[in-house]
Amino acid sequence: MIAETRQPISIRMHDADNVAIVANDGGLLPGAVFADGLVLVDRIPQGHKVALVDLPHGTAVRRYNVPIGYALKDIPAGSWVHERLLEMPAARGLEGLPIATVKPPAQDPLEGYTFEGYRNADGSVGTRNILAITTTVQCVAGVVDFAVQRIKAELLPKFPNVDDVVGLEHTYGCGVAIDAPDAIIPIRTLRNISLNPNFGGEVMVVSLGCEKLQPERLLPPGSIPIVDQRDVPAGGEVQVDPSLDVVCLQSENHVGFMSMIDAIMQAAVLHLEKLDARRRETVSASELVVGVQCGGSDAFSGVTANPAVGFCTDLLVRAGASVMFSETTEVRDGIDQLTSRATTPEVAQAMIREMAWYDAYLQKGLVDRSANTTPGNKKGGLSNIVEKAMGSIVKSGSSPISGVLGPGEKLKQKGLIYAATPASDFICGTLQLAAGMNLHVFTTGRGTPYGLAECPVIKVATRSDLARRWHDLMDINAGRIADGEASIADVGWEMFHLMLEVASGRKKTWAEHWKLHNALVLFNPAPVT
Amino acid sequence: MIAETRQPISIRMHDADNVAIVANDGGLLPGAVFADGLVLVDRIPQGHKVALVDLPHGTAVRRYNVPIGYALKDIPAGSWVHERLLEMPAARGLEGLPIATVKPPAQDPLEGYTFEGYRNADGSVGTRNILAITTTVQCVAGVVDFAVQRIKAELLPKFPNVDDVVGLEHTYGCGVAIDAPDAIIPIRTLRNISLNPNFGGEVMVVSLGCEKLQPERLLPPGSIPIVDQRDVPAGGEVQVDPSLDVVCLQSENHVGFMSMIDAIMQAAVLHLEKLDARRRETVSASELVVGVQCGGSDAFSGVTANPAVGFCTDLLVRAGASVMFSETTEVRDGIDQLTSRATTPEVAQAMIREMAWYDAYLQKGLVDRSANTTPGNKKGGLSNIVEKAMGSIVKSGSSPISGVLGPGEKLKQKGLIYAATPASDFICGTLQLAAGMNLHVFTTGRGTPYGLAECPVIKVATRSDLARRWHDLMDINAGRIADGEASIADVGWEMFHLMLEVASGRKKTWAEHWKLHNALVLFNPAPVT
Ligand SMILES: [Ca+2]
Ligand SMILES: [Ca+2]
Ligand SMILES: [Ca+2]
Ligand SMILES: [Ca+2]
Ligand SMILES: [Ca+2]
Repeated sequence: MIAETRQPISIRMHDADNVAIVANDGGLLPGAVFADGLVLVDRIPQGHKVALVDLPHGTAVRRYNVPIGYALKDIPAGSWVHERLLEMPAARGLEGLPIATVKPPAQDPLEGYTFEGYRNADGSVGTRNILAITTTVQCVAGVVDFAVQRIKAELLPKFPNVDDVVGLEHTYGCGVAIDAPDAIIPIRTLRNISLNPNFGGEVMVVSLGCEKLQPERLLPPGSIPIVDQRDVPAGGEVQVDPSLDVVCLQSENHVGFMSMIDAIMQAAVLHLEKLDARRRETVSASELVVGVQCGGSDAFSGVTANPAVGFCTDLLVRAGASVMFSETTEVRDGIDQLTSRATTPEVAQAMIREMAWYDAYLQKGLVDRSANTTPGNKKGGLSNIVEKAMGSIVKSGSSPISGVLGPGEKLKQKGLIYAATPASDFICGTLQLAAGMNLHVFTTGRGTPYGLAECPVIKVATRSDLARRWHDLMDINAGRIADGEASIADVGWEMFHLMLEVASGRKKTWAEHWKLHNALVLFNPAPVT
Repeated sequence: MIAETRQPISIRMHDADNVAIVANDGGLLPGAVFADGLVLVDRIPQGHKVALVDLPHGTAVRRYNVPIGYALKDIPAGSWVHERLLEMPAARGLEGLPIATVKPPAQDPLEGYTFEGYRNADGSVGTRNILAITTTVQCVAGVVDFAVQRIKAELLPKFPNVDDVVGLEHTYGCGVAIDAPDAIIPIRTLRNISLNPNFGGEVMVVSLGCEKLQPERLLPPGSIPIVDQRDVPAGGEVQVDPSLDVVCLQSENHVGFMSMIDAIMQAAVLHLEKLDARRRETVSASELVVGVQCGGSDAFSGVTANPAVGFCTDLLVRAGASVMFSETTEVRDGIDQLTSRATTPEVAQAMIREMAWYDAYLQKGLVDRSANTTPGNKKGGLSNIVEKAMGSIVKSGSSPISGVLGPGEKLKQKGLIYAATPASDFICGTLQLAAGMNLHVFTTGRGTPYGLAECPVIKVATRSDLARRWHDLMDINAGRIADGEASIADVGWEMFHLMLEVASGRKKTWAEHWKLHNALVLFNPAPVT
């Protein structure tokens, strides 16, 4: 429906921009007149760009004060500036970047914010209390599914403090080139996911027996728990090198299928007892480990939801928390913004190293960063990966970037971290889980029912229309920013407060309510065999 | 337990072999004396190799009449010949291969064998009657899981002729380089799986809306059903170009989560009604499309189960059926055996093309075919990929090879086909499903609870010990061959008859009984983004 009777509204991101996006639900028709007198020449869908001035052939078309493309012909003021009228800029090279040049003024610490969390022996804090069953290989998935159903039906009711039981199933573990150089990524991802704070350090493993990814290779001695002695609560039990709890299906002890199921259930009881004894305690907001990402983006992502996430990111960093932003192909075109914000040259170099590695990875497959954008992105008004990246990168807020994580690595520091991952929603979420994420924030413009069994996911809509239609799937409506009903700061603070509620278990996200769980999807750049 | 009191038994595969494997449960101790007078020098585990004669340094160690390695030092007769004593031969080059040189004597057709199957409009025949819900992208997996549970609980009881409902979930569809040259493989795999004969041509799709793999790209007009007019039963309804049945979650019609679930359930009812009206009818055994593979292999795989499969493969080919053998890295070392058995030079060249492609794929990841063997393989007595390949390739029997399929392609001919796939159990099974497999035969030595929701899987144990312990997971015990209780032909015929029973729905496999389902795992050689 074209909103002809409402006042035409456009949103410009920066004073130097020569395009803006149409904010009105349903878009605008030719002849629509903006408050400043600009008259539309074309019909322009919601979220798509309008030329604010005449753009002669070759002009740099600027949004977010960045050239997102060059006019392929003369574009009169009031025209629809769509992807077919733009030549995409070449990728920014990785040489000569500004390194740690921006020194943002120190922000006031944000003190006194707390949540109710589960303190772990290694010092980390869980927001949920979940029994996770680690698997070494896809071979055991059917058996683990069977056991998990039995545990849910027969055991979980006896352990009311335990939130859920989850089989950490995946497609890795055998039929893969496990000694290839890049195999380190999926292996450490699986290892570190088993150690996610929401699982309370209660690691149990189901193994087949003959798989390439042997339990000792997945979790070598000493890997659970990784104890930070400084944070051990007084009287807390610490096992530095426990023997790994493994149910091996090929073990000669197992005669018949139910013997395997019984063994898994017996192992589960021991861990459920320990998990059930846990209690939430008041901890500082600095114990949050937040992963932010976007999926199903549109032109509003970079205008409403992602800036609100960026504002909230700054609040979290001020509160001493850890925040990870990721999605390499969606920040690649803003690499200069990132390297300049690095706290040290080492951090900037680590970002460049991760981007170069990913450039080479894509090139081996004969593609480049432009493989990122989707039909939905373009329908939503994003002309290309440069425009998408500028809207994605704002999730990182304005704080200094104090660390870099390779894919699958475990996060060990506070502050704003670049966690290098593909932009794929599932791979990014899986890698952020491995990093130790205990709360996930996910923005979407087109809409996605994304959810994880391992960690609460707060979903943020970029448009009010989506928030209205998906009223029981979206947790926050950042579309109110475009509607003029809330500021970026308002929504950022709302997000911050909701995060503390969700982290405390006082509120469930919609994905938790419906139990919407996406698969763990590993990033395996090495071959299968 | 070492079986000291029983007669030591070794199995030699070919008269020219200078090693044999120890057959006795528990292996043999030094001093054990074979019937021919050979005295053991070492303790040798079951399935591992004994030197039948002195093997001086550099000797070619032959098994299956093929050099599986070269002695790295002098190995006296009666010694344990393990992997550390062998240098692996270099990979057979792909030049100068024998092309279609073997003309096996024409085998008598095997007539009169039938099963009760579901005849489809395109001429194919299903062995099960399953509602499959195709998904374009992982984003919808949580919603589809939710809907499938509701359909199972509320709808399936009303349609007693329908066996099951399955969400065809996968990790592809977005966050992938969909225009990369290699993306054709996962896309055609998903397309062809939706058209598997066990789904009766009732294709329904759940799409998110903004994903890269749009429904029209997954299933372009004309792709369902692929009607072979010659085979349309009289009076059968044929829709050559039906409009695709898609539930799109982002559609503006959906307000609230339950609206999406309702839409999926409403679409499901229409397809369930059609599936429920289907009846089994007597069809020729030639309608079987059998995929064979092995997983968790040991030294007995190539002695008992795989030769029995090979015998059964020959029976199936004589009966006019289609049989696919696969697992590229496990036949690569026997390429000369395969090209020589090709019915035409074109078929031989197609095999060489697929092997060369895979060689290059592995090389890009800095590995080679030797990445295939697992710790379990080696524990089971397989020293390296050459030895493993010789035991794997025998599943193909002795019939002429009449066709070659690329990964994810749909099979359109009868006879023995080389379907090129990785050896990964899940990827191989997924690709064979795409090819149109309606019955799966899977041999295992170490033991695996492998199963598929989409197609019955007959599991064959290589050893009696495994068959005894896993009595309710293994469908056939080929270990009786090593025990001297049955011949290869006996077990091959047993397998053939069981296949007709399972295909007819008169028998369930153990994997079906317990509902053990592994994930669909796509082969995606292209990058993720
Ligand atoms: Ca994104
Ligand atoms: Ca994403
Ligand atoms: Ca195999
Ligand atoms: Ca296999
Ligand atoms: Ca599942």
